[in-house]
Amino acid sequence: MLRNLAPFLAIAALLASCGGAPVAKPGTWRSAADVLAQSQPSDWRPLDPAATLYLELAAGRVVIELAPAFAPAHIARIAALTRAQAPLKGSVVRVQDNYVVQWAAEAVDPTPTSPALPLPAEYTRTADGLPFAVLADGDVYAPQVGWSLGFPAAREPADGTTWLAHCYGMVGVGRDMPPDTGDGTELYVVTGHAPRHLDRNLAVVGRVLRGMELLTSLPRGTEAMGFYAKPDQRAPIAAIRLASDVPPAVRTELEVMRTDTPTWSAWVESRRNRREAFFVNPAGRVELCNVAIPVRMATPAKP
Amino acid sequence: MLRNLAPFLAIAALLASCGGAPVAKPGTWRSAADVLAQSQPSDWRPLDPAATLYLELAAGRVVIELAPAFAPAHIARIAALTRAQAPLKGSVVRVQDNYVVQWAAEAVDPTPTSPALPLPAEYTRTADGLPFAVLADGDVYAPQVGWSLGFPAAREPADGTTWLAHCYGMVGVGRDMPPDTGDGTELYVVTGHAPRHLDRNLAVVGRVLRGMELLTSLPRGTEAMGFYAKPDQRAPIAAIRLASDVPPAVRTELEVMRTDTPTWSAWVESRRNRREAFFVNPAGRVELCNVAIPVRMATPAKP
Repeated sequence: MLRNLAPFLAIAALLASCGGAPVAKPGTWRSAADVLAQSQPSDWRPLDPAATLYLELAAGRVVIELAPAFAPAHIARIAALTRAQAPLKGSVVRVQDNYVVQWAAEAVDPTPTSPALPLPAEYTRTADGLPFAVLADGDVYAPQVGWSLGFPAAREPADGTTWLAHCYGMVGVGRDMPPDTGDGTELYVVTGHAPRHLDRNLAVVGRVLRGMELLTSLPRGTEAMGFYAKPDQRAPIAAIRLASDVPPAVRTELEVMRTDTPTWSAWVESRRNRREAFFVNPAGRVELCNVAIPVRMATPAKP
Repeated sequence: MLRNLAPFLAIAALLASCGGAPVAKPGTWRSAADVLAQSQPSDWRPLDPAATLYLELAAGRVVIELAPAFAPAHIARIAALTRAQAPLKGSVVRVQDNYVVQWAAEAVDPTPTSPALPLPAEYTRTADGLPFAVLADGDVYAPQVGWSLGFPAAREPADGTTWLAHCYGMVGVGRDMPPDTGDGTELYVVTGHAPRHLDRNLAVVGRVLRGMELLTSLPRGTEAMGFYAKPDQRAPIAAIRLASDVPPAVRTELEVMRTDTPTWSAWVESRRNRREAFFVNPAGRVELCNVAIPVRMATPAKP
């Protein structure tokens, strides 16, 4: 007599989440499944291989889309590290439940001299010139949230700044106590309820598009903050490298749904109000970090 | 050259989160560590063994605090099932990344006849007579949020209803498409960013106080919605039982921080504004589901 959530979660599972913009007029609502099925090639964008980071774990590849518009110096540093030693190896050093998984690159000798350390504190940037699709539903932490260049982001109109939001799957640069100590050798990914209090306190450099489950299912570390007690508990990373440094034939060709189209608005509305039969009370609102951005394998170009 | 988040996360790791109420006056702010260290025995409450559910996994015990004020019929049913067969066995059938882990009890024959099926749709209840500590920071999903009887909850003043919020660690009753099909044989726990769109659509019966990491580190299921493809992938549960049906000597005696005290307000403020040295920009706001409720082992009574 197994009761399961299958019917209502079939959609949730395949699709994952939703987001912003004005409420759809009655009759125009489409389910998330329909929005995906009816999307056009122009609703999707490819990844830039030079801004895509791969982590090669024994269990598979983690694909991270980098956001150079938000943390250019940190990302240049990460790229330099991946090229200073081939392959750049590393390991997962910390798994803290409902918080972050963190990995560290092995020491590189000599370390790159460009960009020079310390890196600037790229925790916020000017919003000038950046596209921003506002989520109308509001936010507890920021005056305005939405999506910029395909990433969940926040804005402070009072001072004209913007920053990437610490949603599930977002990747940032670990640092020590002083703000300028993050050097790109150690990165973390958010694996629990969005720790938005980290916003504007760390350099966020991108987000995991594929392979989250390889990181989130690792055993939790038992030391303070989820660090592993013994080095042999660390999951090895055989290579940390940019997709552009990998032969095209062995890249993971993904496409990401654009966040600046009518399809995106329909997607957000499909997640804001779930009108599938399972739901007796559609929420009517949706939170930024509950709007997962759809990702799919790219369709090979026809010859 | 490992950079880690150790200093700032030391506190986050030990404590976990924060929440509500008026902003502390300058000079009255205390760190989360200090709030815990300075708390008094009266700031904590014991668990009711008759409203505490244990899942005995091979890796250890999961402790769930039940909330009979919110879903009395569902909880009565769960209790009846645990007593219809001793021990009531089960297994984890579904692990969906950033969403839920779900387990199912084995079939019980004969099934209890009381309370009778179908159960009422205990998705909301009247707020009348229930204490409610309001979180002043607002919420995307509900007009009002806070804590009631020690659980994260929401209220709708317009119709006088209240319900438990689907925060990380909250436990609900799986059901099929019709709202009255949840029978307590299959429960789920939230393991990712709070899926608040489930609020008011399912019967929430409590939350995990201990042992989350035993569930969240399980391999993700590869079938639709994270179900396991093969029965032998399911993590067995040797016993599902109430603490009151376990000899006192082998109970897990926990205490939970009360959510109706000045200490609680200080705790919330410590999480709303993190003024520890690591933080260059305290958030100034906190979201309901980012306020973890402290749990500790009970101090044995002195003879």
